[in-house]
Amino acid sequence: MNFKEPTVEKETIYHGRIIDVEKHLVSLPNGKTAYREVVKHNGAVAVCAMNPEGQVILVKQFRKPLEHALLEIPAGKLEVGEDREAAARRELEEETGYRAKTMQHIGDVYGTPGFSNELISIYFTNDLEKGDVNLDEDEFVKTVLYSLSDVEQAVKNREINDAKTLIAFQHLLLFYNHSK
Amino acid sequence: MNFKEPTVEKETIYHGRIIDVEKHLVSLPNGKTAYREVVKHNGAVAVCAMNPEGQVILVKQFRKPLEHALLEIPAGKLEVGEDREAAARRELEEETGYRAKTMQHIGDVYGTPGFSNELISIYFTNDLEKGDVNLDEDEFVKTVLYSLSDVEQAVKNREINDAKTLIAFQHLLLFYNHSK
Repeated sequence: MNFKEPTVEKETIYHGRIIDVEKHLVSLPNGKTAYREVVKHNGAVAVCAMNPEGQVILVKQFRKPLEHALLEIPAGKLEVGEDREAAARRELEEETGYRAKTMQHIGDVYGTPGFSNELISIYFTNDLEKGDVNLDEDEFVKTVLYSLSDVEQAVKNREINDAKTLIAFQHLLLFYNHSK
Repeated sequence: MNFKEPTVEKETIYHGRIIDVEKHLVSLPNGKTAYREVVKHNGAVAVCAMNPEGQVILVKQFRKPLEHALLEIPAGKLEVGEDREAAARRELEEETGYRAKTMQHIGDVYGTPGFSNELISIYFTNDLEKGDVNLDEDEFVKTVLYSLSDVEQAVKNREINDAKTLIAFQHLLLFYNHSK
């Protein structure tokens, strides 16, 4: 089976601050053509961090595309050329004031592969020291703490509406060793 | 805390087949303004389906934004006004030829809430009957079957690079009763 859709013609619709939008005319395996809309993004990182009290550190922030606030693990955009794990450490400290001494990699996932190439790298840490909060000037977040039992209830009640956060919570329930 | 970013000015960048792109000038809680790029999408559905042999039915398809194929649970776009569970049944049958008699709701998640409002509803079913494959004319997919032990290995080895598929796999490992 031929898993390719070569671009015949490309139109750049928009060159933005966070995203670029392209429209590709592609050649299909059956010889026909089709249009594909592509939203290019530099990628993102997210960190599921547990404080010394065993609580997961979440941030609540207004998300313009949804027109409401969303509860998420700390996350942010990758700078151009930035190492993913370094970016995860940076975002965690900027948003929560905690510095991760060590981190484990949970996985790399595409959130919406149908139209965007945004790849999100997700990490876990419970190895923290105090650092400095340093939010972007257009960033307003509120910290929320969840116990492991809150995490379990939120998963069971289907209350988590952010993909990376649900992945991190399920990962905790599957693999986090309570005795540590 | 004020979790609102009212739009001061809106520009529609692109009105497409699957996405619309908007640029909003918003008013921030600190009185300043910022630009927000918003990709509007009608929403999507996905189904983690287990066949009578206890295998999870996956589809591999070329994803133009990534320029490579991706292994995913069957999924698709919601039609305008379509019920989410009905859409999930429709997509499952179109892509795999299986009709779900009953389905369980795993959750609703935003894959990329930073720039898009695409909400993905994820379901599970192991209650299938034979139906008819009916792919869209620009859709080319290959079916791949995973045993529960394949699912477990793929999660542990961080091989799943699609958010909705990883959520479904982790859900299976957490909640699927092997004795059923």
